[in-house]
Amino acid sequence: MPTRFFDDPDQTVPQMLEALARTRPVRVSGAGSGVMAVVRADLDPRQVAVVSGGGSGHEPAHAGLVGEGLLAAAVCGDFFASPSVEAVLSVVREVTGPAGCLLVVKNYTGDRLNFGLAAERARAEGLEVEVVVVADDVALPDNPQPRGLAGTVLVHKVAGHHARRGADLATVAAAARRTAGDCLTLSLALSSALLPGQSGERRSAELGLGIHNETGARDVDPSGADDAVGLVLDALLPVVDERHGADAPLVVLLNDTGGCTTQELAVLATDVLRALGRRARLLVGPAPLMTSVDMHGFSLTLLPYDDELAAALLEPVVPADWPGASPVAEPVTFAPQHSAEPDWGAGERDEAVGTGLRAAATALLDARERLDELDAAVGDGDAGATIGRGARAVAEALDADRLSTGSPALLCRELAALVEQSMGGSSGVVLSILLTATAGGLEDGDDVTAALRAGLERVRVHGDAEVGGRTMVDALSPATDALPEGLDAAARAAREGADGTAEVTTTGVGRSSYLRAEVLRGVVDPGAEAVATGLEAWAASRG
Amino acid sequence: MPTRFFDDPDQTVPQMLEALARTRPVRVSGAGSGVMAVVRADLDPRQVAVVSGGGSGHEPAHAGLVGEGLLAAAVCGDFFASPSVEAVLSVVREVTGPAGCLLVVKNYTGDRLNFGLAAERARAEGLEVEVVVVADDVALPDNPQPRGLAGTVLVHKVAGHHARRGADLATVAAAARRTAGDCLTLSLALSSALLPGQSGERRSAELGLGIHNETGARDVDPSGADDAVGLVLDALLPVVDERHGADAPLVVLLNDTGGCTTQELAVLATDVLRALGRRARLLVGPAPLMTSVDMHGFSLTLLPYDDELAAALLEPVVPADWPGASPVAEPVTFAPQHSAEPDWGAGERDEAVGTGLRAAATALLDARERLDELDAAVGDGDAGATIGRGARAVAEALDADRLSTGSPALLCRELAALVEQSMGGSSGVVLSILLTATAGGLEDGDDVTAALRAGLERVRVHGDAEVGGRTMVDALSPATDALPEGLDAAARAAREGADGTAEVTTTGVGRSSYLRAEVLRGVVDPGAEAVATGLEAWAASRG
Repeated sequence: MPTRFFDDPDQTVPQMLEALARTRPVRVSGAGSGVMAVVRADLDPRQVAVVSGGGSGHEPAHAGLVGEGLLAAAVCGDFFASPSVEAVLSVVREVTGPAGCLLVVKNYTGDRLNFGLAAERARAEGLEVEVVVVADDVALPDNPQPRGLAGTVLVHKVAGHHARRGADLATVAAAARRTAGDCLTLSLALSSALLPGQSGERRSAELGLGIHNETGARDVDPSGADDAVGLVLDALLPVVDERHGADAPLVVLLNDTGGCTTQELAVLATDVLRALGRRARLLVGPAPLMTSVDMHGFSLTLLPYDDELAAALLEPVVPADWPGASPVAEPVTFAPQHSAEPDWGAGERDEAVGTGLRAAATALLDARERLDELDAAVGDGDAGATIGRGARAVAEALDADRLSTGSPALLCRELAALVEQSMGGSSGVVLSILLTATAGGLEDGDDVTAALRAGLERVRVHGDAEVGGRTMVDALSPATDALPEGLDAAARAAREGADGTAEVTTTGVGRSSYLRAEVLRGVVDPGAEAVATGLEAWAASRG
Repeated sequence: MPTRFFDDPDQTVPQMLEALARTRPVRVSGAGSGVMAVVRADLDPRQVAVVSGGGSGHEPAHAGLVGEGLLAAAVCGDFFASPSVEAVLSVVREVTGPAGCLLVVKNYTGDRLNFGLAAERARAEGLEVEVVVVADDVALPDNPQPRGLAGTVLVHKVAGHHARRGADLATVAAAARRTAGDCLTLSLALSSALLPGQSGERRSAELGLGIHNETGARDVDPSGADDAVGLVLDALLPVVDERHGADAPLVVLLNDTGGCTTQELAVLATDVLRALGRRARLLVGPAPLMTSVDMHGFSLTLLPYDDELAAALLEPVVPADWPGASPVAEPVTFAPQHSAEPDWGAGERDEAVGTGLRAAATALLDARERLDELDAAVGDGDAGATIGRGARAVAEALDADRLSTGSPALLCRELAALVEQSMGGSSGVVLSILLTATAGGLEDGDDVTAALRAGLERVRVHGDAEVGGRTMVDALSPATDALPEGLDAAARAAREGADGTAEVTTTGVGRSSYLRAEVLRGVVDPGAEAVATGLEAWAASRG
């Protein structure tokens, strides 16, 4: 079984371009033409055409960044392989108008030579072409040829911004060169990349692993996200400080090299922003921008903040893969307004109701073991304990004279709060929904029966519990219907309803919903049983 | 060593919220308050507040979708655990103004009950609250309680769209309910999710695996991306067709469940759009929207296309995690303009130049073995073969009288095309850059020496090859300087330069750049040696 979603590896690049061609305002040239490239369909010949490219495997760089405000075109090689001179040149011909063309090239020998020769030949054909090379890696301080990494995408954004505003080629190239010169990037990966169709061992964690799996600065063993961020910043920040000053405010790009989840990226972003403190002024990402297929890692790019750069990075663009830039601020919090406790016992008293409630609570405390056994036959066996917690809370509230037994609506609200706070789990919430909605009905002038029916309707809506579903509703619903005939009738109806649940062997809700018929047959639902038990005790207390 | 970028797993949700709080116009309530939630900082009380939430682990759903045009707030539980009633209620209080509040809830018992009770209690406090439940999963056709999946995000978008336009609560809720009712979703995952802090075995490929790792419809063994898409559509499309008609045009959401790379998502998108053909009218994604931490899979959501839905989905919003929607079209291609062949031999002839060129070519063909040996000492040992291919191409062109030996600029262009096409690799490109730029100089009126210097400057720019770098430039540059004194002087200078490369033991470019001093000492650079060999033969031919 394949471990990744690819088809024929040789078709991966054309497939990726096809996805863009079907969903974006671009034109593509497929593999059959000898050229793999994406070109804006809405080119404006008055604008400098910003073109980039290189080996594939770094998506969305560069093909996913073609569109208004970013690239005019991207020229794609095979995975990790530079496109040919002819491919670059044919795209330059396609996009270059009177305003000229800027080639943004990552600092790898193949890319520099192929884009460079294409530029020379394009000039020989009379086209205005400039080349900017990005070499932002700081992994190997002594390397006279630093690699081009995620900073390249910031160069695209700055160049695309100036091109869209109609700047001339010299201005666009100068802005791109300045950004390229300012960007400093370092990566940390927990594991190296495997290309489509490849399998085998991955290298383990390295600081500065290159985007084509080139050797990094050293093996590392971060203890977690925060430590990984620290390892990167410990090596990156001194270079930034030396180049740009130790208090320079910064633009930060947090790039996913391909294998990070959204959750990890958010954790890394928090760790990075905490570590940089007030120096971090603008964050690009976190997002996959310059990936290495599924390399599980991230890179941080830092460059000095200024208002002109911020304006260029903040301006919205058309390509969906650009994640936008966000000003960084200290978190603003809000203090949640917690619920006030009910005004316990603020209403009237009705001794008979108090006696009935106490009888029901006592009966349910006595029934805990039986209810647990019923539950154990079909579920996790804690129904008696859960219901018992509610019953004890009611009994204790009665002891403390905290229940408005003579004010039905208030009593329902007090009981709703009690069961929600004491029972836990879904049954407490269901009962609280019933009691809360019943209280609302009573306050609206319903009689008790009508109010209970309104409450049961809300239970149906939120809990999808209807008669015949092996829930407490199987006892509550017939009891409500019988209530106009008196409490004894209601208790008898509840008992009949509860006993009937033993015959219900297909259900759609709650804990029983996935159990087979033979497990359910003959077992009374513990929730319905509890309702019947409580009501019987209440009715008997009226004796 | 951890295999993922997390810190204390118990802090992951607060850390994720902090990242949003530092970079977006939102307020958060941290874990210390007993509530984990994100609320728009720029709430408009005239708008219906669309609120969602549920267990964490599905980011960007829901916290990442808080912002203008989408959610007013998100209430977050722990990973895969519903937030409490009190948490939901406190957020409802925070965001609900006169226009009311819509709760969008995924169809899980805990979420439905907790959001449901919060709604009931909010109503008791006088707030206008509606609830819409999303149950878009088709994995288990007989399940009366389908799970809520990625379709939920489309409900957010539609509800947020209408809320932003000032629609009243009934209208927003009706639009949300309609979208929720129309969405049908099915997932396929190659492996199940592990929560932060968890390790251990993952389950292998399942069709319909739930977003909390709930059992899917069945185990599957897709042969690749296309097959995986087929497995999903074979099960999903019949439900869509039955519900909405077999020719209904469709909106498609392609959701990454967390573990897919950008490359896989692009391949999957192409496979999906090919399979759906003209029925696919609008694509949302591919993007992580409703993830399950690092579950390696995708889900497809289909719903009937209409113009009103399209307008709602196409409208841009503020939260960066919304990937936008794209109209689907047939790919538009462009035919790359390949380079014309030079007009071979269109210029003058100069017999002495032809004789010199042939002598050089013959000498380089004879020198192949020696050049390979020099290269093998420091590199991959193919310099002689590469240079030999160029020399043979030149000899054959002379045989066919295809070289304009008497027209220097034309000759340079012809030779540039020959070496680029025949040699391959970087040395052919470097030589072609030299010859192309030299031709440009000659055409601009430079003499041969000045033109060659211009060419060498372009080699320096694109190839970073300067004197002292152990490249052919070490012979070419002194030869150019000596050329005004004649060809013999130039050949002697080339020889001296080539021999000098044996003493160069630190280099910064090309294949030698990473080699240690002891490996390089005493070995002449094969490129420089080739230049000297060719020039010596040419000079000797003048006798």
